[in-house]
Amino acid sequence: MAEGSQRRNVFIHPTALVESNDVGDETKVWAFAHIMAGARVGRRCVVGDHAFIESGVVIGDDATIKNASLLFDGVTIADGVFIGPGVQFTNDARPRSPRAKFAMDRYGTRDWLLPTCVGTGASIGAGAIILPGVTIGTFSMVAAGSVVSRDVAPHTVVKGTPAREHGLICRCGTELRTFSRLSQRTVPPCAKCRLCSIP
Amino acid sequence: MAEGSQRRNVFIHPTALVESNDVGDETKVWAFAHIMAGARVGRRCVVGDHAFIESGVVIGDDATIKNASLLFDGVTIADGVFIGPGVQFTNDARPRSPRAKFAMDRYGTRDWLLPTCVGTGASIGAGAIILPGVTIGTFSMVAAGSVVSRDVAPHTVVKGTPAREHGLICRCGTELRTFSRLSQRTVPPCAKCRLCSIP
Amino acid sequence: MAEGSQRRNVFIHPTALVESNDVGDETKVWAFAHIMAGARVGRRCVVGDHAFIESGVVIGDDATIKNASLLFDGVTIADGVFIGPGVQFTNDARPRSPRAKFAMDRYGTRDWLLPTCVGTGASIGAGAIILPGVTIGTFSMVAAGSVVSRDVAPHTVVKGTPAREHGLICRCGTELRTFSRLSQRTVPPCAKCRLCSIP
Repeated sequence: MAEGSQRRNVFIHPTALVESNDVGDETKVWAFAHIMAGARVGRRCVVGDHAFIESGVVIGDDATIKNASLLFDGVTIADGVFIGPGVQFTNDARPRSPRAKFAMDRYGTRDWLLPTCVGTGASIGAGAIILPGVTIGTFSMVAAGSVVSRDVAPHTVVKGTPAREHGLICRCGTELRTFSRLSQRTVPPCAKCRLCSIP
Repeated sequence: MAEGSQRRNVFIHPTALVESNDVGDETKVWAFAHIMAGARVGRRCVVGDHAFIESGVVIGDDATIKNASLLFDGVTIADGVFIGPGVQFTNDARPRSPRAKFAMDRYGTRDWLLPTCVGTGASIGAGAIILPGVTIGTFSMVAAGSVVSRDVAPHTVVKGTPAREHGLICRCGTELRTFSRLSQRTVPPCAKCRLCSIP
Repeated sequence: MAEGSQRRNVFIHPTALVESNDVGDETKVWAFAHIMAGARVGRRCVVGDHAFIESGVVIGDDATIKNASLLFDGVTIADGVFIGPGVQFTNDARPRSPRAKFAMDRYGTRDWLLPTCVGTGASIGAGAIILPGVTIGTFSMVAAGSVVSRDVAPHTVVKGTPAREHGLICRCGTELRTFSRLSQRTVPPCAKCRLCSIP
């Protein structure tokens, strides 16, 4: 644990490994989690048991990274994002074992690395798999178990393998409407949360 | 490890974290697993490496919780259940990051928490994802990699995303019949296991 | 850590558990990973954080086993294979809890155990689930999030649940062609890698 982290009131479970000096105030890191040097985690985040955050990852404030989620280099997580348990990010569209002779050319540069962004307030359900190079829009929701292979529009619910658009959701978590063939995108106001609207 | 656990002949791997005082006789907990205070685990269970059992979870006797499975508050596991490796339970149908301002209302109460039950002798295959609020019937079998979004009937095999009914299975693990369109539920006797029948 | 391993220049993270004496030269084992006694890992491999390698597993040289992958007894991995993060192997087609009375007959012998082989240079994407008893061909590629229920032919890309053939790929990671209905298997030469061809 970095000394700076202690000063900033970070909680790090005794079994966790935090090698980064860039973990924000009031963030909590739970058992057997590992945050590598060069990763950046914002303030008031929670990183669950067995989570892995690689060098190069950037996480904003107020994010929740649940148990056993794996975030690799190239992943950027905005403020207020929920990453469910066992979510797996990726950063290589056609991986080969870098130490095998037939694949060494591929890993001579960083051209293989595709970045992934998750927008403010979005949620990714348990066990979802995020293919590399996608952007997941603000306040969208990826259903548990989805395989996301394309960008997800803001405030949109996607589900399935590959993930397809299913409906619209408010930032407060209230489902606004389900898509049908007849009317694709008429958005009613959120009955629960008057402060929020879809731009 | 609770002192009481030692007396009851519980095996806890030196790297495991067992904060619960309610782990039954002859249960084994393997490396890097974490059982939180307030969870209840029965007798003669096995909890594999990197598994996570949250406060509020109840597990019966003779259950097998394989490696890296994640059981959250609200999950109840009956006697003799098999939870495969990397199975992910959930308890919130529309999760948001609880520490984000736009979602705090959602987490002011426990209304978001949906319970999940797995019946006696059921099996859940590797990497299956169980959406919140479902009941998985006695002696049923969820195929590896399924996403379970609805209740599963007793002795029924389900598979896919979302999981659909595929056949019937005996409690001993013998497949009894595969469903076709013509005859949905005629159940032959189990050729292998005479003791068992589907009610 | 075995003394022999130290002599062979194996790196083992202080939090990893390596009980096997059969880990090859220059292999690296990262945090919270567990390699059981009786597993065999070749030279110049990397085993990522939270990975689990059970007794009976055999891994060749130059393989990459990414974070949180689970390899169980019966799994054989050839040289130069890439196993992505969170990949889950299985070895029992109809698992029941072995300690439950109704299932003890099933586990009296080892007949339940089905072996799985991954051929030289193949890649398995993040979070893929490999059903027991399949053979994954040399230099093939399993897309992230797939559920593999049948054998995969050499140099073939498969994806989906269940995984279906999608195209052909070179050993260097260059996609050669996507299958269409009209022409199934005409293979053009690899534009990038002149050394390689599909047999």
